Formats: sequence, C-alpha cells, structure tokens
Amino acid sequence: MKIEYTPIGVIHTPFKELENMPIQPAGAKGIQGMIEIFKEYRDGLKDLEGFSHIILLYHFHHSQGFKLHVVPFMDTEMRGLFATRAPKRPNPIGLSVVELDKIENGLLYIRNVDILDGTPLLDIKPYVPEFDTPTDIRLGWLEKVRKTVSHRKSDDRFK
Amino acid sequence: MKIEYTPIGVIHTPFKELENMPIQPAGAKGIQGMIEIFKEYRDGLKDLEGFSHIILLYHFHHSQGFKLHVVPFMDTEMRGLFATRAPKRPNPIGLSVVELDKIENGLLYIRNVDILDGTPLLDIKPYVPEFDTPTDIRLGWLEKVRKTVSHRKSDDRFK
Repeated sequence: MKIEYTPIGVIHTPFKELENMPIQPAGAKGIQGMIEIFKEYRDGLKDLEGFSHIILLYHFHHSQGFKLHVVPFMDTEMRGLFATRAPKRPNPIGLSVVELDKIENGLLYIRNVDILDGTPLLDIKPYVPEFDTPTDIRLGWLEKVRKTVSHRKSDDRFK
Repeated sequence: MKIEYTPIGVIHTPFKELENMPIQPAGAKGIQGMIEIFKEYRDGLKDLEGFSHIILLYHFHHSQGFKLHVVPFMDTEMRGLFATRAPKRPNPIGLSVVELDKIENGLLYIRNVDILDGTPLLDIKPYVPEFDTPTDIRLGWLEKVRKTVSHRKSDDRFK
C-alpha cells in the first residue's frame, strides 16, 4: 500500500544546513520562522490565529533511507528508532509544536522553530492540551537527559 | 512534488465505523487497542516500552477528499480546516497521543484509543513533555468548549 501526499506549503527558517540546529523547539526558544501556505489552501487558515501554538507535520526532505537503530543526539547508546525523534524514519514525518505569532496574506509567522529551511509542510493542527497533553508520564531512556534538551545541538549523524 | 509513504503497521480498535467514536483520546479513556507492527520494522521498537505515552501518526484511510471549511464535532459554526482536527484534510494524517501498556512480539497494547479499526500506521514517536508541551496557551474557538471534549462523540459529517 502506497500513500501519496502533496505539500501544502514551505517552512522558511534560519537553518540552512543540518548541523548545529536546535534538536527540538525547546532548544529553539525565540527563533523565528515563516511558513508560506500555497494559495489553494489558504482558505483553511481561517480561525487559526486564535491559537497560540500549532502542531506542524512536515517531510524531512533531507533524510535519505532509514535505520532501525540510532544513537540519538541526546544519548551515547544505540536506541530503537521509534523510541527516538531521529529523522531517518521509514516514513520521515517530522512533528514540531511551535508558537504562532500572526498570520498575514497566507504567511504564518512562527517562533521556537527547530526545522530546516525549505522543509515541505504536510499539515497544521491546532495544539489543544486536552487532546495532546497526557499526565503521569514515564520517559524511558530520555528520563535522565530530558532537562538538557535546550542546550543540545544537532550534528551530521543523520545526514 | 509528491511524497510517498508506506504503512509500518495497522491499528486494531473496537471502532468499526466512523459514527459514535470518541473524537479524541481524552474521550476514549480506558478504551484498548492493539497495533501490529510489520515484521521488517519491529527492530525499531527497542527501548519504546520505557515510555508511558506515544504519539501515533496515521493515515485517515476512510477520508476522501478535503474541505477547507468544516463544522467541527465540538462546534456549530464553520471553521477553517487547519484550525480543527477534522479528518478531511489535504494530507489526511491523524495524530493521537495514546498510553502504551506493553509490547509483545511486535504487538503494541495501547489505551485511550480514538482511532478507527484497520487504520494504517505511518509513524510512532515517544511523547516527551519537554518537546511536546508548550505553556501559556491560547485556544481560539476551542476555548469555550474544551472542557466538554470527553463527552462528545463523532457523527457521519466527515464521511
């Protein structure tokens, strides 16, 4: 079974290469980006500006192939791919929760951006705590390192 | 630009038709499901069991075409599609945060499932509050109705 998607826009950010990027929005506080939504989809942006945070789903367009075991940026041990957020996935879909500043003429001005410049956007969803924020969390291998995420940067390991 | 994905597994749930489903995991408390990960991807599940909650990205396989304005289950007014979680999207990717009970032989036993039976799974990511939970949230049109989500059910409007 093949599933075919078409980008609805492009994400513009200050990050022109894979190295030295923040590895999550938590490490990208204040970094601004801009999303260009293609004309034919702009009508769907109505009412979105009321939300302070949005979920972006996008295609890791620089990710070639996948590996089922990776050493994540936040660790020194091999981990199962699905227990990480590494980009080399069977379906390389990225997910980031970013802050929405404003929308003007089909352009979304966003903040806390950890995404590579030129990334094709697949979907936008409003972030809703009642849907998206569980309680009583356990974090596996990430438990020890979770507090350090805002200081970490990417390197070239997932090229 | 076309992007092609291939399912990594199938989600099995008690929901055989689109009507009368919980509309989000918050309304599906305790409802159990099971994900079958295809053999060739099972090695990537290592370390995942340490996480209490996982993010599922899946293909809304019963969604045909899209509409840029919809009346969401939680509202009576037309809203811009991207300000809702409705399934009829240009790229019909669903996102649910569910609880992970255990993993056995490539089967993931999950809880709080709001997903249709037979749904093709695209990706699994560990849920990490530092990445996925922003603060200082504004919720637009959903602000008034957010507390009622756990009582609401779907109907046939997105067939």
